[in-house]
Amino acid sequence: MAERMVVVGGDAAGMSAASQARRLRGRDDLEIVAFERGHFTSYSACGIPYWVSGLVPGRDQLVARDPATFRDRFDIEVRLRHEVTGIDLDRREVVARDLEGGGEVRAGFDTLVYATGATPIQPGWARGGVAGVFGMQTLDDGTALLDWLDREPKPRRALVIGGGYIGVEMAEALLHHGLSVDLVEQADQPMSTVDPDMGELVAEAMRGTGIGIRTGRTVTGLDERDGRIAAVVTDEGPIPADVVVLGLGVRPNTALGEAAGLPVGPSGAIRVDRRMRVPGTPGVYAAGDCVESLHRVSGMPMHIPLGTHANKQGRVAGINIGGGYATFPGVIGTAVTKVCELEVGRTGLRERDAHAAGFEFVTVLAESTNRAGYYPGARPMTVKLIAERPSGRLLGAQIVGWSEAAKRIDALAVALWNNMTVDEMTALDLGYAPPYAPVWDPVLIAARKAVEALAHSGR
Amino acid sequence: MAERMVVVGGDAAGMSAASQARRLRGRDDLEIVAFERGHFTSYSACGIPYWVSGLVPGRDQLVARDPATFRDRFDIEVRLRHEVTGIDLDRREVVARDLEGGGEVRAGFDTLVYATGATPIQPGWARGGVAGVFGMQTLDDGTALLDWLDREPKPRRALVIGGGYIGVEMAEALLHHGLSVDLVEQADQPMSTVDPDMGELVAEAMRGTGIGIRTGRTVTGLDERDGRIAAVVTDEGPIPADVVVLGLGVRPNTALGEAAGLPVGPSGAIRVDRRMRVPGTPGVYAAGDCVESLHRVSGMPMHIPLGTHANKQGRVAGINIGGGYATFPGVIGTAVTKVCELEVGRTGLRERDAHAAGFEFVTVLAESTNRAGYYPGARPMTVKLIAERPSGRLLGAQIVGWSEAAKRIDALAVALWNNMTVDEMTALDLGYAPPYAPVWDPVLIAARKAVEALAHSGR
Repeated sequence: MAERMVVVGGDAAGMSAASQARRLRGRDDLEIVAFERGHFTSYSACGIPYWVSGLVPGRDQLVARDPATFRDRFDIEVRLRHEVTGIDLDRREVVARDLEGGGEVRAGFDTLVYATGATPIQPGWARGGVAGVFGMQTLDDGTALLDWLDREPKPRRALVIGGGYIGVEMAEALLHHGLSVDLVEQADQPMSTVDPDMGELVAEAMRGTGIGIRTGRTVTGLDERDGRIAAVVTDEGPIPADVVVLGLGVRPNTALGEAAGLPVGPSGAIRVDRRMRVPGTPGVYAAGDCVESLHRVSGMPMHIPLGTHANKQGRVAGINIGGGYATFPGVIGTAVTKVCELEVGRTGLRERDAHAAGFEFVTVLAESTNRAGYYPGARPMTVKLIAERPSGRLLGAQIVGWSEAAKRIDALAVALWNNMTVDEMTALDLGYAPPYAPVWDPVLIAARKAVEALAHSGR
Repeated sequence: MAERMVVVGGDAAGMSAASQARRLRGRDDLEIVAFERGHFTSYSACGIPYWVSGLVPGRDQLVARDPATFRDRFDIEVRLRHEVTGIDLDRREVVARDLEGGGEVRAGFDTLVYATGATPIQPGWARGGVAGVFGMQTLDDGTALLDWLDREPKPRRALVIGGGYIGVEMAEALLHHGLSVDLVEQADQPMSTVDPDMGELVAEAMRGTGIGIRTGRTVTGLDERDGRIAAVVTDEGPIPADVVVLGLGVRPNTALGEAAGLPVGPSGAIRVDRRMRVPGTPGVYAAGDCVESLHRVSGMPMHIPLGTHANKQGRVAGINIGGGYATFPGVIGTAVTKVCELEVGRTGLRERDAHAAGFEFVTVLAESTNRAGYYPGARPMTVKLIAERPSGRLLGAQIVGWSEAAKRIDALAVALWNNMTVDEMTALDLGYAPPYAPVWDPVLIAARKAVEALAHSGR
């Protein structure tokens, strides 16, 4: 008789695990069932801002694979709108509620993949559910927002709360709809995923597009009038708004797992070993936005919800479930985004992270261009490096620029992954041609500057 | 009394060495004199095709620093139009001919930097000097070609001989002038700096722009009529042309050095140690297109003339001359270019190089896109990896694509530099956001495919 693999959560991590296990084990050997409480499997949450903005024409384009594809091509059964409400590790079964048909389903498992993702952080004031206030995590959230933007009386003033990736991307998306857009952020700058000096470049670019940036303000409540949002209340007074998007970050969705006895680590997310197995619970794996990952630079467990990690972790879990051997060696915090035309990339530790991890370091900011200075379309690029002293080991890097800047972070990410020193990096053989780089690539210019900073840092 | 540093060749390598040495040693400690036989210092030879095409408006934009700048800002004396004709290592002096004023100059040196660059390869048939036939190495070459294109009777049929970087870039440049353009290449494909499977993608793109590609043909002579080029004679008959550009590659300019007793390595270029010192000749350094470099993958000395290496090597020489410590750890053959809109990148070994070096390996070709498939402007990208078997170590990589493809080679170059295996690479934390990559970056997709190929390769 075939064993059964049950997947809790049918998005990137869960479905990657399922697909990968299937590649290695046929249907006669392994039955695979996935429960998903939402309406979709394997959709690109990261794509939602671009669909809302109108750049991506249709919602369906964000869905990589639907349940029919999983069934027909992979012999994987997906039960949409089924919310798993309990996991019994002793009896080795899950209980799921059918959100549409009603009733309960029980499914035994030999192997379990816990891939419940993350849920948006909702402060007390956000929990009421005021009309015109939207989270932005699911495709349904996007549909609801688009409906609201289309409905009379049409909103004109948009407010985004939170200046992280989703916040800045949604601010831009709302701008595309012709709304006046403000962004409120509790910290001193939006995009605090980079250091303040780099974040200021982002804030400037956002202001340049007409987005109002209101930093250092704490939201304390929502004002509604006639059953619709009218204003957001902050510690410095109300800001009128007739549509509000919340971008306050997410936290790992651990409640179900904790109730079943899955261990939670210091980051608040589910603990896993290198093979994505949950320690102490044989046959149980976890992957994606609900787990914590080793940060290879700080050595600390971190919760970094991101589709690319979810896919990799799911793949690793699936290979191991399939009888192969694979490990997930951790993350280094690489991320890229686009704020209107400005490109932003980061990897490794920010200054504050490096301090917190106990490193001593130097930092340098190097100004350069994406192309040879004489080549048409050459635009400014700023590269920041953080290097341990006295060793010179790269600890973190950030790039802000106007064209072909963001993905340049990859070269730095691979250097950091391999524990290179900035001195070693000055010799890197990177691609050079006038349309793509000055003869000293911005990355190399920054490395040289860091070497000089280390020499002058008194050690 | 100050020591004297003499630089033979005032371009990238030589002037980098001079500038770097100056940063570390003041004028009272070190006098610096550079001899350059041409009209310019520190110009971007790589930029010539873009100036000829009209993209870069003026020749002066390609000159990074002129002699006045070197004199005023760096206390470095540059003697243009002075050709060094002899180096006497025993008497420690150079003899230079003043090409304009006439006469000879002698200059003693404590330290010598040999940075004579490379000279275009000229088969016998090209040596006559037919009007309308141009090399393309110096700014003077570019000026001469532009004059010719402007002069009556205006040329209409251009022929480029040689399908390397300069050849394909010049073919495109001539297209911009409205000429009909053919390219003749002895090998079976242009752009043989990548493997034939990838080169075919380049050839296709070139044909798409209207460039005639004539491969497998050997040029044997030039036909002139009325003192002007009329046709290029090949082993398969003549090809009419009224302007011809030679892109047959270059060889290291070693004659002067060899005459003085500088050692030449197996690649035909000047030998240097890790600090860019010429072995057996104290106080003599060499750098740039005239020297050979260690290829870190094959372990062989190679001659790879490229501005980015010249600058790095010059910097290393200058630091060592300045009393510091720096080494040049070799190259891995990274190069990028643009053929009309198609972007091409490569690093490490091609299949033929890997064979020649004695490696066993697998190769994979992975098709993907530069952005998330649903994001506007997503374009195809092909990544080829060559991985040693059974170890899985990356030996080489090539990328061809339509947008933001070329510089993606950098992530692969840094991985290769650090001896990563394709298995390790599948976990790399590269930047992900829909405008910049699918959730599995093309580089990671290729690495996964290589892992599978290794598993099926029977070892």
